[in-house]
Amino acid sequence: MSKLYGVPLSPMVRKVLLALEIKKINHEIVPVMPFNKPEGFEKISPLGKIPAWEDDKVTLADSTVICEYLEDRYPEQPLYPEDPAGKARARWFEEYADTVMLPVLGTVFFERIAKKMMNQPVDEAKVQEILESKLPGTFVYLESQAPEADFLFGPDLQMADISIATNFINLGHAGVNVEPAEYPKLAAYVERLLQHPAVANRIAEDKKFLGTK
Amino acid sequence: MSKLYGVPLSPMVRKVLLALEIKKINHEIVPVMPFNKPEGFEKISPLGKIPAWEDDKVTLADSTVICEYLEDRYPEQPLYPEDPAGKARARWFEEYADTVMLPVLGTVFFERIAKKMMNQPVDEAKVQEILESKLPGTFVYLESQAPEADFLFGPDLQMADISIATNFINLGHAGVNVEPAEYPKLAAYVERLLQHPAVANRIAEDKKFLGTK
Repeated sequence: MSKLYGVPLSPMVRKVLLALEIKKINHEIVPVMPFNKPEGFEKISPLGKIPAWEDDKVTLADSTVICEYLEDRYPEQPLYPEDPAGKARARWFEEYADTVMLPVLGTVFFERIAKKMMNQPVDEAKVQEILESKLPGTFVYLESQAPEADFLFGPDLQMADISIATNFINLGHAGVNVEPAEYPKLAAYVERLLQHPAVANRIAEDKKFLGTK
Repeated sequence: MSKLYGVPLSPMVRKVLLALEIKKINHEIVPVMPFNKPEGFEKISPLGKIPAWEDDKVTLADSTVICEYLEDRYPEQPLYPEDPAGKARARWFEEYADTVMLPVLGTVFFERIAKKMMNQPVDEAKVQEILESKLPGTFVYLESQAPEADFLFGPDLQMADISIATNFINLGHAGVNVEPAEYPKLAAYVERLLQHPAVANRIAEDKKFLGTK
């Protein structure tokens, strides 16, 4: 069976997992932790990063490369807009989520949740610094882009939404929410994201794993 | 006319430029320097980065997003393989070039060429450290992937090759070459890359600008 290497708490692994679940692609998860990789993992993922993907045709690393491949190979239930301009805008949001949101929102999660899981001391001063100096810029940009209703490209959740949602899931686990008074459009959009059945199911699975409600 | 914002010496701008030139897409270059952006540039490129692209349908940032868009909109003279597995492998090489090669090879260029152009002192110790500790890992990986003949996906230069070539162009400007005795497959592949007419033309244009031969 096709294999997704990684752990669902990793935002980039969860991004691929959501694509697999929404597209209903058969797969199994092979748990690989970022700091404890099995021998030979570099053959599947040259930089040793998660997620990685293996099926009858390919071994692939990089969440975006994997998701584009899944879309090309399994075009039913499309997760990108069809027109070139829309698809380009969707790819921009995915790039923004992976390279701008992840280092900011992901660090809050890493400090407050991942480090706690590894019995390492949490650097709460670092978290506060991020919340005060870096998070607002991201929220201001997303507030300017958030759709008034539905998702970024209409009624269906697509890769652009998934890429943003996976970061907000981890931010939520770390106890940080979007303030509706300050960012009304973004807060409402994030609420819609987190209530989408596939996303809500991921959050519930995470909470089982984390032992929280 | 469609506009490419940036300067051709930037490896990511040159990557898009090579795609435009090979695909014969009409465009003009609007010179934007990384450290001297015109007012309002954030409307075109939200993170203020180059390259950015503007045509009758879109404004886009990020070299990969732009190149994928150009491929979708102008599919003649394709720059990616057609089959999903090949296309995924090509995207992996593009990602590798942009996120692994660029910080390594690009820093050598930045220190030795860009800083000199800006009359700033060159940190040659930093260059030596990169050449000794970081460049070999990249070269070893590329040696394992370099094709025995032609380019990565056959006789035509594609985006994967272009993404790699643009980094080697700047490394060449910085006076560093691939040692054929150590990396025979890679050295031969890079030589084929740099001799491709579109690439050779870019190098000649760069040299005019840099005032070198």
